[in-house]
This record gives sequence, C-alpha cells and structure tokens, in this order.
Amino acid sequence: MWLQLVDLFGVAVFAVSGALAAGRKQLDLLGVVVIAIVASIGGGTLRDLLIDRPVFWLSDPSYLYVIISAGLATVWLSRYTRFPEKSLQVADALGLAFFSISGARIAESAGMPGVTVVVMGTITGVFGGVIRDVLCAEIPMILRKGNIYATAAIAGTSIYLLIDPLLPRPWPSVVGMLTIAGLRLSAVAWNLSLPEIHIRGGTAK
Amino acid sequence: MWLQLVDLFGVAVFAVSGALAAGRKQLDLLGVVVIAIVASIGGGTLRDLLIDRPVFWLSDPSYLYVIISAGLATVWLSRYTRFPEKSLQVADALGLAFFSISGARIAESAGMPGVTVVVMGTITGVFGGVIRDVLCAEIPMILRKGNIYATAAIAGTSIYLLIDPLLPRPWPSVVGMLTIAGLRLSAVAWNLSLPEIHIRGGTAK
Amino acid sequence: MWLQLVDLFGVAVFAVSGALAAGRKQLDLLGVVVIAIVASIGGGTLRDLLIDRPVFWLSDPSYLYVIISAGLATVWLSRYTRFPEKSLQVADALGLAFFSISGARIAESAGMPGVTVVVMGTITGVFGGVIRDVLCAEIPMILRKGNIYATAAIAGTSIYLLIDPLLPRPWPSVVGMLTIAGLRLSAVAWNLSLPEIHIRGGTAK
Repeated sequence: MWLQLVDLFGVAVFAVSGALAAGRKQLDLLGVVVIAIVASIGGGTLRDLLIDRPVFWLSDPSYLYVIISAGLATVWLSRYTRFPEKSLQVADALGLAFFSISGARIAESAGMPGVTVVVMGTITGVFGGVIRDVLCAEIPMILRKGNIYATAAIAGTSIYLLIDPLLPRPWPSVVGMLTIAGLRLSAVAWNLSLPEIHIRGGTAK
Repeated sequence: MWLQLVDLFGVAVFAVSGALAAGRKQLDLLGVVVIAIVASIGGGTLRDLLIDRPVFWLSDPSYLYVIISAGLATVWLSRYTRFPEKSLQVADALGLAFFSISGARIAESAGMPGVTVVVMGTITGVFGGVIRDVLCAEIPMILRKGNIYATAAIAGTSIYLLIDPLLPRPWPSVVGMLTIAGLRLSAVAWNLSLPEIHIRGGTAK
Repeated sequence: MWLQLVDLFGVAVFAVSGALAAGRKQLDLLGVVVIAIVASIGGGTLRDLLIDRPVFWLSDPSYLYVIISAGLATVWLSRYTRFPEKSLQVADALGLAFFSISGARIAESAGMPGVTVVVMGTITGVFGGVIRDVLCAEIPMILRKGNIYATAAIAGTSIYLLIDPLLPRPWPSVVGMLTIAGLRLSAVAWNLSLPEIHIRGGTAK
C-alpha cells in the first residue's frame, strides 16, 4: 500500500521528466506521451523482470492513467508557464529517490543479501532516467558533470538498509528517499561533485 | 496460427530494415545479420518478457531461419539493385504495424484492460526499431521529423480494440495493421506531421 | 561449477572493461563502479531473462563482490600504472569469449536447436559490451572498424556446438572460448577485418 503510493509518485515524477525531455525534441503530442510512459515504467519494469514478479503496470491500469495524466498536464502547463531551467533535473532526482528505495525494499523483502539490495535499488532508480535519455538521444544524466548521481542512490539505499531494523516503517524508506533526493538536489543546486576518476590509456582506437 | 504468420511477416520486414540500417555502417556480413536478428526479435521479445510467457523465437527456430534468410537476401539483392531511398522507412512501417497489433492481441487475450492493451501494443511495435537504431548509433525513428510514429501505433491498436468485438477474426487485426501502416507511410510519403510540442525551459545544464 | 567459474571470470573482465570505459568519462568513483556492474551483469542477465531462469547475480552475491573488487582494483591500479592503449579491447574480447560460450552452453542444455544456441550465445556475449558502450555514450564496439566481433562469437559458438558431442568437457568450451578470444584479439592486433557490406540507398531522410 505504502509501496504502491511510492511507486505512483515515482512514475508521476518520471512522467514529468520524460515529458520535459521529449518536449525539447520536436515530437508530436503522442510521441511525448510515449516517452513519458517508457521513462516512468522503465525502472520498475526492470526491477520486476529481474525478480521475476508480475510487471507492476500490467496488472493495475491506475499507473498508466497517472503517467498519461502527468505527461499531458506537463504539456498543458507548458503553454501557460515557463518551466524553470532545472525542473527536469529536479523531477529526475525525485524519480531516482522513489525508485531506488522501492527497488531496494522489494529486493530486501525477497530475502536478498545486503550488497544485492543496494545494487538492485541503484539499478532500478537509475534505469528510468537512462532509458529516457537514450530514447531522446541525450547523454544519460548519470554521465553528466556536477554528478553525485549513482552515488546518491548508493548512499540512500545503504542508509535505508542500515536503519530498517531500527526504525518503524515507513521511516527507513522516508529517510532513504530524503537522502537520495537531498544529495542529488544539492549537487544540482551547488554543482557539487566528488573527485572524478581518470583512467589513462585504455583508449579504444 | 494467424498470429504466428503475422509474427513471421513482422520479423521478416524488421530483418530487412535491420540489414538496411546496418548496411550503411561498415559492418561485415555477420555483423549485419546480428543487427537484423536483434532488430527483428526485439519487439516480440520485450512483449514476451513483460507478459512472462516463453520467448517466441526460443521455442521455434523457424523465426531465426526466416530472419537470417531475409537479412542475407537483403544483402545479396543490394549487389544487383539499388534500394529506393525510403525502403528502410517502409520496412520499418510494416514492422511497426505487425508488431503493434501482435502485442495488442496478446495483451488482450491475457485479459488486460484497454489502456494497457494499447500501451503494450505500442511499446512492442516501437521497440524493434528503437533497438535497431540505438545499436546502429542512429537517432531512433520515433524521434525523427515527419513523424506520426507512435501516433500511428496508438491509433491502430485503439481501432483494433474498438472493432474486435464487432468483426470476425482476423478482420480487426487486418484493419488495425492497415491503419498503422497507412498512417505511417502517408506521413513518410507526404511529410505529414502533427503539431510539435515545445516545452520551454526545463533545459538540463 | 565449471560454468560458474567461467561466469566469474566473465564478469571480472567485463567489470575491468566497464571501469576502463567509464574512467574516461569523468564519473566519480561510485559511477565507475555502477558502470562496471551493469556492463558485467548485462549479458548474463539478458541470457537468464530470455530462458526464464533465476538471474544469476541475484541468488549468489559472490558475483557482485567479484565485480566490485575488479572495478575498484582497476581504478586503484590506474593511479600507479598506465593501462596499455588496447587494454579495453582485450578485456572486452575476453568477456565476449566467456559469455558467448556460457550463453551457448545454457541454451544447449535447455535442449534448444542449433541455430538458437548460436544466436543465444552471440547475443549473450555481445550484450554486455553494447550496454556498457550505450551507457558511456560511445559507439558500440560491435560497430567499430577493424571488426570481426559478432563474427568471432558466431564462429566460436558454432565450433563449440560441433565438437561438443566429440570431446569430453570442458574441452569444447575451452576450444570455443579460445576461438572467440583468438579471432577477436587477432583482429584488434593486426586490424584484420572481413569485407564490409555496403547497402546503397535505403537512406532515411
């Protein structure tokens, strides 16, 4: 129930991010909606395929209604207002937070070991944005400067995992999501970044 | 039976489209065949993974024989004839039509609600071409100008869904596929397009 | 057991290749680790999803430990030494060899026909590198000049399939892997390539 609500918020913000990204690409209205749908179901679909449970949006059409409404609302609002410069990154950060924790929760309740929970959460959170950017022929956000992207997801899912035995639900999830969104939004706001790794050589011809 | 025939035509035309796209990329013969295979099984594979049924080309090798033959025939024919400028887009439009309806049919017979049937059909139809273009490092056709791409798939699967209770089989499928191929080919032929959506702002740095 | 050892080597070399590729992309440390993980589990995950068996790294966390260690070791070593120019291509060739044969073996033991075994092996081997390059916004190695890439995988899995009834295990796998790695590394070392296929026309507008 709580998990479904998190998923609904997650798909809604990823739908907004998909519509924002597609809206700069000269698509028609239904093309924008398709990108919004694929971006918002991507992470959770990968999660469900990996764990071999029923894909969440197939059994319950309310997800698709929320996604389509959020995508259309974004398009409609864009006629009357100008979205702030960083709105795509904010929507993406929220989607990252929601889906990372939802992926970690489901992996944990399936009894997986800690490292697998963190990796599953991170992949689930990252995948929605990656597929959106690949479909829009953009460089995936995980690769852009001013980073702390995968890092935020790893930190948040690790904290979730650590405090889950200590706090009553839904607090571990809330703290984990706030960690991810907070780290990622701080990085966007103040251009924070961790030291970059440079590997010399290894260049493909 | 009818469904399998549609799938065989679908993989054949996507194999041709994959070979045409790969043939401009300086691959060797087997590289072209691999792109043809991946392009043509992509949509149906995603459909089968999502619905959690056995992947169609694993159980029946006739698909792979058809795909490999169609890919090799395209390469062989290209030595004696010059393919018309828009042949890639025509093959892609037919594949879009075949796989959209096949995805919608299977989702429908699994008892899914209407909006899910349309989304499943559209994703199934679009995915083959997207994976081909991503592998070939091209901008996916769904994003190119002179569009009506996802729109054609949504229109055709919706019409299929509406007339399926009214007409005997296979007529709903035939009408749906003709709608998709007709809309998409008209858009290619006369550069039709729906109004583009522009969302100001929201630019990632 | 033998198969698991091959998988462990496969994920380790693909983790190195992922870290090398990501290390040129100005990611932070955890971003490099995420790319290393996704690159190394990609091929086997696709294989397991297609055959509908449990995803190999979910049930056994030792894979993730090996991958993370290999990725971190690559980053750490890069501070003290300069990787040779072609190290990325060498790691990629080894991963291609390990995963192609592992995919072919599993498809064969599931009783699939010959052509399906070769295609499954090739897709499994190719996919890890493709997803790494797509995530790093690079042209996939399968498309780069000086090729014999998919060709090496097809040749090696075909030889494996032919000699499997004749030789005791693990020799067919060993010969198949040596064929793939040998062909691919020869192509890299001496810029060998098969004749390229050019298909005139078929240009999308």
